[in-house]
Amino acid sequence: MAKLIEPKVLKGFRDFLPEQEIERRELMAELEETYKSFGFVPIDTPVLEYTEVLLGKGGGETDKQVYHFEDHGKRDVAMRFDLTVPFARYMAAHRHELYLPFKRYHINKVWRGENTQKGRYREFVQCDFDIVGVDSASSDFEILLMMRASMQNLGVKKCTVHFSHRGIFNRFLENLGIMDKSVEILRTVDKLAKIGRDEVIRLLTELADGDKAEKIVSFIEMKDSFEATLANMSELAGGAEADTERLEQIWAAIKDMGLEDNFVLNPSITRGLDYYTGLVYETFLDDLPSIGSVCSGGRYNNLAGLYTKEELPGVGASVGLDRLLAALDELGQSSRKKSYTEVLIFQMDDSLMGHYHKMAGIIREAGISCEVYPVNKKLGAQFKFAEAKEIPFGIICGSDEKAAGTVNLKNLASRENHEGISLEKAIEVLKA
Amino acid sequence: MAKLIEPKVLKGFRDFLPEQEIERRELMAELEETYKSFGFVPIDTPVLEYTEVLLGKGGGETDKQVYHFEDHGKRDVAMRFDLTVPFARYMAAHRHELYLPFKRYHINKVWRGENTQKGRYREFVQCDFDIVGVDSASSDFEILLMMRASMQNLGVKKCTVHFSHRGIFNRFLENLGIMDKSVEILRTVDKLAKIGRDEVIRLLTELADGDKAEKIVSFIEMKDSFEATLANMSELAGGAEADTERLEQIWAAIKDMGLEDNFVLNPSITRGLDYYTGLVYETFLDDLPSIGSVCSGGRYNNLAGLYTKEELPGVGASVGLDRLLAALDELGQSSRKKSYTEVLIFQMDDSLMGHYHKMAGIIREAGISCEVYPVNKKLGAQFKFAEAKEIPFGIICGSDEKAAGTVNLKNLASRENHEGISLEKAIEVLKA
Repeated sequence: MAKLIEPKVLKGFRDFLPEQEIERRELMAELEETYKSFGFVPIDTPVLEYTEVLLGKGGGETDKQVYHFEDHGKRDVAMRFDLTVPFARYMAAHRHELYLPFKRYHINKVWRGENTQKGRYREFVQCDFDIVGVDSASSDFEILLMMRASMQNLGVKKCTVHFSHRGIFNRFLENLGIMDKSVEILRTVDKLAKIGRDEVIRLLTELADGDKAEKIVSFIEMKDSFEATLANMSELAGGAEADTERLEQIWAAIKDMGLEDNFVLNPSITRGLDYYTGLVYETFLDDLPSIGSVCSGGRYNNLAGLYTKEELPGVGASVGLDRLLAALDELGQSSRKKSYTEVLIFQMDDSLMGHYHKMAGIIREAGISCEVYPVNKKLGAQFKFAEAKEIPFGIICGSDEKAAGTVNLKNLASRENHEGISLEKAIEVLKA
Repeated sequence: MAKLIEPKVLKGFRDFLPEQEIERRELMAELEETYKSFGFVPIDTPVLEYTEVLLGKGGGETDKQVYHFEDHGKRDVAMRFDLTVPFARYMAAHRHELYLPFKRYHINKVWRGENTQKGRYREFVQCDFDIVGVDSASSDFEILLMMRASMQNLGVKKCTVHFSHRGIFNRFLENLGIMDKSVEILRTVDKLAKIGRDEVIRLLTELADGDKAEKIVSFIEMKDSFEATLANMSELAGGAEADTERLEQIWAAIKDMGLEDNFVLNPSITRGLDYYTGLVYETFLDDLPSIGSVCSGGRYNNLAGLYTKEELPGVGASVGLDRLLAALDELGQSSRKKSYTEVLIFQMDDSLMGHYHKMAGIIREAGISCEVYPVNKKLGAQFKFAEAKEIPFGIICGSDEKAAGTVNLKNLASRENHEGISLEKAIEVLKA
């Protein structure tokens, strides 16, 4: 006999048991419903693309993590590492088949061969939504509203979207004359929540003089109100401009909708080294801020510059599904449903096999998920099966019941019985 | 300026435009609803696995088509080429966390670097459903019912499931003393529909003597009724056994449900070189049989033998989504919806941005998909956008209407107007 192969999976990759996959699929379906309700449309792109097309400029940190190889036709191909680069390529390729502004969502897996410590996976799902072809306060605001609606519809009790404007931050650095150190400064500022104010000042003092470090920290700290925070940012950046006006427009709309409790201007949000140029935002769960942002994004001024001369400004965000699942789990808000089955028809007579499946069909027609236990076996085994799948109801029917045109309906949790009732009556009970 | 990169995709891979992706997702959602209604649960497995784990025995035709490479950690890894092998590995790995019989579905992409001619893709979706851990007529029958229900729920007007039993075919070949040539015979028999009876006899005569070739053709041809076909198969195979009894049980259940028009015993169905050992089936659209089987499967006696000593018999089938999409397209039954949006709120006054989004939120609360045109622009551009997305209704509201607490609701197809009505009234009209 041949040696058995160990059924192992790669590090950083995961199998999903039914209860995990049910929850994951329900969250994705809920997100999709939210995106659809805002007028977004789905697209899909290949998992494999030409490496040159995906990596373009090349040389970055991400590139080293990309799974790429030579295919059967000697082409250098790569697995997508995010959904943004394929979307940029897609917009350039299909521009003439689409209209602008274009609002798309894309929920799918991406792959990165990064270190797997601390809940990081090499295969994970991204849930992206973007509006491209327009630079307006309304589209910025719509993405903010969607971030909130996504969390609400997923059952997150309370979350806060922190937003800022990368353009104002850049003006501020220019004003201070330290734009050349922006990369290091952004990296440091990004750590404020993690390492605290004093440590940030210490690190910044290594990059600029102490006075400037103090100014940077003053810039990124929230004041008592939106107005005070914005006034401080504006002053340090050299005065009001279109970027500060954009924040005012958005805040006015937030107030019109009475959502001041859900959004906060937080100048320490910069989205680090990302390609954002305008509004930037991150979403934190009020009950579990330590898990980090579960939905982040921002505005960029040119999505597809690698592939087309047409400038496509856009704004978008992405829900971190795995982080959110971990958060819901930690908050005890996981669903952990074992199956969808609402009623199990017990199989106790081979000659009634057709009858069992016929009843199952009638029950399904009524919109109730139903299955026939797949073989005539001891009742104990059938009850165990129902328990493993957490099926709430059972239907028991032998040849006597068939002859009488009845069934016995059993509530498998309470053990309550409805004996000798018609199938129609049983369906009524199941629907109640 | 850097040279632009051509935004091309790999041969055999596809981008999906919104109307294509909407249809594909709707079909997948419909299939999923069907699977769930039969008590099946979803699982997921990684796209990348150890090559050794996926290819096991190795050396076959499929192996050459598998995308595999060395990852960053010098592991030989492969992209899954079907959903059956990962499922086998999954059952072996998680046996102690699961119950039997286990009924799972898995709808996801697989990759094969095969020739791309004639509508074959290198990236395509499989929609699998299997019942493992039991060998019973009821589970065979349930898969048959699901194949029919899947097609019905997808809107296919009429299809016929052709089924047979691979075990009887094997007994027949043994009885003829030509089991050693079964591979070539199966390949030839598989071509009956394509090349016709005479050519099949000619090819078979090259493999066995003329008398045996005639007998093979007699075996695989359908007679006037289920009973006559089965009697002929049984006689040529050496008499009745458990395999012929299984077919009788299934036919009795089909009759109990009055589904004789949907199923036909067709002994030429063998599923070629696949690993099936019992019932086998293929599904043909009555209006477009030439496109081939859109849903096929069968019973196997040992799913996970590569990974575990525990024998796991099972039965399952897979819907060929791409072929089905092509068929629906050819039959003029494609949906080709451009978007989900039911109403567009026109944007005509910057100061009303918050008001527009507030109304949109109220409309969404009523279960209606709604979007705000993302920027204050000429009405012509906004109408064009509504047309491109095939949005049926528009809401127009300026500062006068806002002051009066009203909106103008426009049917964008009929140009019918409801002027100066309340938002509540507009929602009533939209829901009607």
